[in-house]
Amino acid sequence: MIKAYQAHCQARVDDALKSLFDSPAPDLARLHDAMRYSVMNGGKRVRPLLVYGACEALGGVAEQADGAASAVELIHAYSLVHDDLPAMDDDDLRRGQPTTHKAFDEATAILAGDGLQALAFAVLADPLRNPQSAETRLEMVRCLAHAAGPAGMVGGQAIDLGSVARRLDQHALERMHRHKTGALIEGSVRLGALASGRATTADLADLNVYAQAVGLAFQVQDDIIDVESDTETLGKRQGADVARDKPTYPALLGLSEAKAYALELRDQAITAVERFGHAAEPLRALARYIVERRH
Amino acid sequence: MIKAYQAHCQARVDDALKSLFDSPAPDLARLHDAMRYSVMNGGKRVRPLLVYGACEALGGVAEQADGAASAVELIHAYSLVHDDLPAMDDDDLRRGQPTTHKAFDEATAILAGDGLQALAFAVLADPLRNPQSAETRLEMVRCLAHAAGPAGMVGGQAIDLGSVARRLDQHALERMHRHKTGALIEGSVRLGALASGRATTADLADLNVYAQAVGLAFQVQDDIIDVESDTETLGKRQGADVARDKPTYPALLGLSEAKAYALELRDQAITAVERFGHAAEPLRALARYIVERRH
Repeated sequence: MIKAYQAHCQARVDDALKSLFDSPAPDLARLHDAMRYSVMNGGKRVRPLLVYGACEALGGVAEQADGAASAVELIHAYSLVHDDLPAMDDDDLRRGQPTTHKAFDEATAILAGDGLQALAFAVLADPLRNPQSAETRLEMVRCLAHAAGPAGMVGGQAIDLGSVARRLDQHALERMHRHKTGALIEGSVRLGALASGRATTADLADLNVYAQAVGLAFQVQDDIIDVESDTETLGKRQGADVARDKPTYPALLGLSEAKAYALELRDQAITAVERFGHAAEPLRALARYIVERRH
Repeated sequence: MIKAYQAHCQARVDDALKSLFDSPAPDLARLHDAMRYSVMNGGKRVRPLLVYGACEALGGVAEQADGAASAVELIHAYSLVHDDLPAMDDDDLRRGQPTTHKAFDEATAILAGDGLQALAFAVLADPLRNPQSAETRLEMVRCLAHAAGPAGMVGGQAIDLGSVARRLDQHALERMHRHKTGALIEGSVRLGALASGRATTADLADLNVYAQAVGLAFQVQDDIIDVESDTETLGKRQGADVARDKPTYPALLGLSEAKAYALELRDQAITAVERFGHAAEPLRALARYIVERRH
């Protein structure tokens, strides 16, 4: 079920994203190529799926969520481009393909990332791409700026930078992930809920419990995959994080404890959206998928 | 007169900006330090001055424009941080001080720039920092996203990258600057006008003529200064752009023609805001200042 839903969401958001990179002037072609390359990469679109899932859980329809789904994926894509830079993680490969600074050059990769971030806010503010009331659109801009900024994703990357080769306890590790990946995942769920036009405070609170658990489960499973997978499946060097002395859940808790923790988080997530009934099935399926995936 | 107005605007926007960097958690301190360092640098605050000037030209008061003034300066600051990176212009000094990646490190500079961009949108969307109607705030978000993004500033930097060691004609050079510095200058004037809450379509059109002329004059004068100043006054190596084979107006038009062109643009700008009377005096004074400054 999740595969079909994922394919459906992926096709929707890919269409919406593709339309952002139409025919630039010749002197802007390289920048646009680099932005398109960074975004149209066959990614799993987990964050857009959370946007659509949250919107539909509250009785909204997918059309309402296309703008928010595009915006979170643009932010995610920019963060990967900058994260892969030589001064950051210095990765040559992403999903088995050259990273943006390898396929283009470093300066273009920096600018492409910067441009993608601006584009994300442009999409949310655009009444044609995000047809909500002005108040809702503004609330969505606030939400994305918070999730992407120094109190969210960028803050998490900064904490991560400071944590290399330092032993974090579980509290510090969760704080790092809560910012680095959690903030945008929570933002995706909240944006989807807002896009439905029907979110109550109680809905947002329950969905936030779901998002926090899913965000953490995603990270724990990523760490497990990094230990267990080989280079071919993953598209990057195996054990790359461990080799780089980055703190991981298997290193902190032990592998089997880390796996148990991922399952516990999955169950928390599923419970949090129980009251939304059948409409929340995509969100539940995603919670299961996240801890079952091998890459 | 412009000195006093500039000092007044500088103090206002510096207060507003300073309040954005209050007491982070310890693991976010380095990121916040780098962001604060990049913004609180004694800069001339030309863009905020344009915001305040446009707001007041339409009969608004400065309080209405603090949010927009902060937002454009955050975008400007982030663009300088990324521009100075080794992969871009590779500058060690900015206003005589170490650039952000020199004072901190490259990864922190990349993240600080990313965080500043997100913060700019957060400020505009925040009803406490930008107390406009929802419709106006949204229009302001759209305006800033356009000015900062691939169709604006980031696009201009990409065109600039592609133009090094290539001889541009005047049309291509103006297209580059129109994006690179012009877009944010036009955005600043438009944001200020919107912040007044009184801008008519005709007002926006006249102010845009002013902004285009001022933006271009600013760039022409920058090129002239780069040729004429020595390192001490400028805080960076003299003739740096020429040495790097970047296209400049003095190289293209000759020095005295470039100077005449700057004065012509100044007069265009002054004429465009004539009908706003005394309220537009700061905008006119700024147009004069821009072509008279030596650094």
